Amino acid sequence: MKNNFFEAVKGKLIISCQALPNEPLHSSFIMARMARAAKMAGAAGIRANSVVDIQAIQDEAGLPMIGIAKTDYPDSDVFITPTLKEMRAVAATGVEVVACQVTGQRRPHDEKLAEIVQQFRTEFPNTLLMADTDTIENALEADRLGFDMIGTTMRGYTPATQGMNIADHDFEYLKELRSQVTRPIIAEGKIDTPEKLKRCLELGCHAVVVGGAITRPLEIATRFIEAIK
Amino acid sequence: MKNNFFEAVKGKLIISCQALPNEPLHSSFIMARMARAAKMAGAAGIRANSVVDIQAIQDEAGLPMIGIAKTDYPDSDVFITPTLKEMRAVAATGVEVVACQVTGQRRPHDEKLAEIVQQFRTEFPNTLLMADTDTIENALEADRLGFDMIGTTMRGYTPATQGMNIADHDFEYLKELRSQVTRPIIAEGKIDTPEKLKRCLELGCHAVVVGGAITRPLEIATRFIEAIK
Repeated sequence: MKNNFFEAVKGKLIISCQALPNEPLHSSFIMARMARAAKMAGAAGIRANSVVDIQAIQDEAGLPMIGIAKTDYPDSDVFITPTLKEMRAVAATGVEVVACQVTGQRRPHDEKLAEIVQQFRTEFPNTLLMADTDTIENALEADRLGFDMIGTTMRGYTPATQGMNIADHDFEYLKELRSQVTRPIIAEGKIDTPEKLKRCLELGCHAVVVGGAITRPLEIATRFIEAIK
Repeated sequence: MKNNFFEAVKGKLIISCQALPNEPLHSSFIMARMARAAKMAGAAGIRANSVVDIQAIQDEAGLPMIGIAKTDYPDSDVFITPTLKEMRAVAATGVEVVACQVTGQRRPHDEKLAEIVQQFRTEFPNTLLMADTDTIENALEADRLGFDMIGTTMRGYTPATQGMNIADHDFEYLKELRSQVTRPIIAEGKIDTPEKLKRCLELGCHAVVVGGAITRPLEIATRFIEAIK
């Protein structure tokens, strides 16, 4: 039986608590405290990167989690939980959802998404899978491969979608996506105001992930500095 | 000779990095990392609370600092560096500026502001003093007592100013304040958007302090949650 992740986050905010090694807040201790802040504010779930951060946050917050493992491989531009190895490591933490990049690009070691998803399902039948997609085409592919939820995470971050923002034209992309995929949609990526969060839910997204606008002070401070340059 | 704090922060952003014991990010380690983020973004100075946080941030960021020591006393509502004891402790860290509350309220042990300022000047002739004020009347009193800069920090946080926000009516209060006081004004308190920061500088404030909107994820996340309640 699948866990009750969908029920727990329906119509709610999931906060992404991430700081990569080159970021000023890189530290599992700090990410756990960020998750504490998220929980105190009323977040329904947490998205986190790396096994150590996920474990620190599980201990701290006890909220449903989407786990990822960002990993760079020299032979691929796919970096969000890109291979079966990272999928296994993240799932082994016990997170409710493992998210991986589904952007139609060649994967490390030329792994085939259909194959690793099938293998993952055999090994972790109770773990949900989220697809971090960039286009309708790739979202439909994730749908076909049986991903449990479709994220918009990668829109604007692939060569095919450079310069795009899901908020463009009152979230035109979200409306189109919703008319085409059958799985629940998790809006994610550049959602940086309370108004955008609200609008994504109004448009029928199952839940929304907000990250940098809440948990990346460098990113927030940069917007203030830009205003007075 | 006074330090060159005024030159360093003129027309710029000072970021307040604070987390009290009841806040999720309470930790000198985390505040130092926040200050790192602030510096990376281009902040010109840091405001911080407590001797341990100040010292951790000095080691990390090497930026000009405004130091405070929030302390509750049972016999007074004045809590920002309220007595000579806290003023000395903060100044001893070597911060460029010590800020204390100037709101016309009775101070702990019934200390008199004019007397402790005079004593402080004798002991720390090279440390600047900032007044955290709430009204024109108290700003003028700070001016008379020789504070080096006038902050708007307490506006909206005293019985006399409850519900007020310095941004009301296009910062009407700031315009009035500027027409009446002679010392440089440091805008601080509820400045939560890049647009407000910019406007404060346009209106002639010497520098602007932004805190919660950048460094308090609980406060930021709460605004997102409020939008979908």
